[in-house]
Amino acid sequence: MPAADPSLPGPIFAGFDLGGTSIKLGLVDADGEPLAFATYPTEVDRGPEAAVERMADELAHLASNLPQGPARLQGIGLGCPGLLDLKGGRLVLPVNLTGWAGFPIRDQLARATGRPVTLVNDASAAALAEAWVGSGREFSSILMLTLGTGVGGGLVVDNRPVVGAHGFAGEVGHVPIDSSPEARLCGCGRRGCLEAYCSATALMSRAAEELPDFVEPRTPVALAQRAESGDVVAERLILEVAERLAVGCVIGMHILDPGAIILGGAMTFGRETSPLGRRFLDHVRQAIVARTFPALAETLVVRYASLGGNAGYLGAAACARMAWLEPSQAGGLPLS
Amino acid sequence: MPAADPSLPGPIFAGFDLGGTSIKLGLVDADGEPLAFATYPTEVDRGPEAAVERMADELAHLASNLPQGPARLQGIGLGCPGLLDLKGGRLVLPVNLTGWAGFPIRDQLARATGRPVTLVNDASAAALAEAWVGSGREFSSILMLTLGTGVGGGLVVDNRPVVGAHGFAGEVGHVPIDSSPEARLCGCGRRGCLEAYCSATALMSRAAEELPDFVEPRTPVALAQRAESGDVVAERLILEVAERLAVGCVIGMHILDPGAIILGGAMTFGRETSPLGRRFLDHVRQAIVARTFPALAETLVVRYASLGGNAGYLGAAACARMAWLEPSQAGGLPLS
Repeated sequence: MPAADPSLPGPIFAGFDLGGTSIKLGLVDADGEPLAFATYPTEVDRGPEAAVERMADELAHLASNLPQGPARLQGIGLGCPGLLDLKGGRLVLPVNLTGWAGFPIRDQLARATGRPVTLVNDASAAALAEAWVGSGREFSSILMLTLGTGVGGGLVVDNRPVVGAHGFAGEVGHVPIDSSPEARLCGCGRRGCLEAYCSATALMSRAAEELPDFVEPRTPVALAQRAESGDVVAERLILEVAERLAVGCVIGMHILDPGAIILGGAMTFGRETSPLGRRFLDHVRQAIVARTFPALAETLVVRYASLGGNAGYLGAAACARMAWLEPSQAGGLPLS
Repeated sequence: MPAADPSLPGPIFAGFDLGGTSIKLGLVDADGEPLAFATYPTEVDRGPEAAVERMADELAHLASNLPQGPARLQGIGLGCPGLLDLKGGRLVLPVNLTGWAGFPIRDQLARATGRPVTLVNDASAAALAEAWVGSGREFSSILMLTLGTGVGGGLVVDNRPVVGAHGFAGEVGHVPIDSSPEARLCGCGRRGCLEAYCSATALMSRAAEELPDFVEPRTPVALAQRAESGDVVAERLILEVAERLAVGCVIGMHILDPGAIILGGAMTFGRETSPLGRRFLDHVRQAIVARTFPALAETLVVRYASLGGNAGYLGAAACARMAWLEPSQAGGLPLS
């Protein structure tokens, strides 16, 4: 692409959300308003070089459809899974991207596109997106918890993503919430992690223990349907998740005091649109109130995320915007 | 004082540490090098107006002893205890400053001195000081835990103090580390808080339970002396504190991933200078390693604080410097 022209009004930012199955790409303006979107398969086996070439091509194509698009494109954010080397711009332990470890993806994408690229962890990106244009938009600091197969998390403090000294910040899923010897075993090999109680995996283990007739499909959705149909054990198991989740929320509140806690992921039981989703959220709130200071309980904001699968690329684009606004800082994220 | 002259080389910053017994005041240069220090009684009963007048007088006096001191004095940081209204610049729940609640101390001090004043919580100030010129100086993010009568804490992320949406960030003492019904009761009325295991109060309760012959003076120092003299129960109780503290550290690490965890306060058993202090720190480290990810354990830095009672005013001065360097941000702290 030709160079960006900073004199043009209306800068545009690109955000990539790189996953093991698909790559999402969105273009947004400086207010986070979506302008264009594309998604295509990652094709992990073809390797990271091929992926970067395709990312650059897809971006050039998408930008060219917008008035003066390429000239207005100021920067790119790249959200990637797993552990990253943010300084070096490399993938370190790229979950579901077998063989891509060590690849200098940030600088290769910058070379292929001619634009500065900011690398960010996908969970941090999602949190930043929710704080920018999602359900945490009126807050400058949020703690986001993503309840899926595992439990992920992301932090935004003073409108910046907190990535941590080793890229581990927001690993809320592996915060110990039970230090007793009988604490449940987590997939990470330790006991008592939040993930050992609040992930889909954990809920399905509990269901297998308590509901012998709960057979395939063993999914949170199927369990939620049983609860909605009046199965009190299914309901209790789901509300136990809410109880445990509240402990994780209180831990986050007493360390960070965020303006809001945002809950995302599949384990949110239909969110506000379903009675069970509303009961789940109410239960989390009540359990937090019982465990925190009155002054914090009074102003407690716990909400479901609103951006769903778009959070990743929107947050990546937010990083690109941040790097453009304050190149010296880039929200603490190094730039290509 | 006459107005500051920004053209003079060598700006000076003042830091106040306002406590219930005494007020400490230090002047430092832009590198945090101490230039002058004074301490005098708070005289809580005389009220906050009298205290502010005296603070301004003491500052003017201290500055006048330095070459061109008043003209080089660019700003003031004010560290205060308890809950603060950082936006409004007021004391809200000022521990040990009975009758001072609601007083607009920040703006009154600015008026009396003719300098901008940045208000900060004393625990945040201490953490910032350790990250600036103390034992966390090579890190841009630290979690500080202060183990005293209670357990306090402060966070620094990307060289800025994290104060939280309601001024509660860093309330690590009230992070739940045990959610079982048998968890110990905390002074805050809830169960299982870190403070219920790692404060001097908690340790003295445990000593009373397990050592019937442990009589006055019932202090951590006296218990430490017993441990040093070979009392295995006393030693075990102290190392139990280390075990519980490690849980708190792991929680902080998995949420924030700080570059270092810094331990301060009286409950550090002589620190590096005593064999027990060294065993305590080793025990904390080992217990963390057993509970965290190998990648974090490898780079683990847990150290004792190095600034002692100077951390409060040094951190306040650091806030003043931050406000001067970037007036629009002031590290997220509002300025008078």
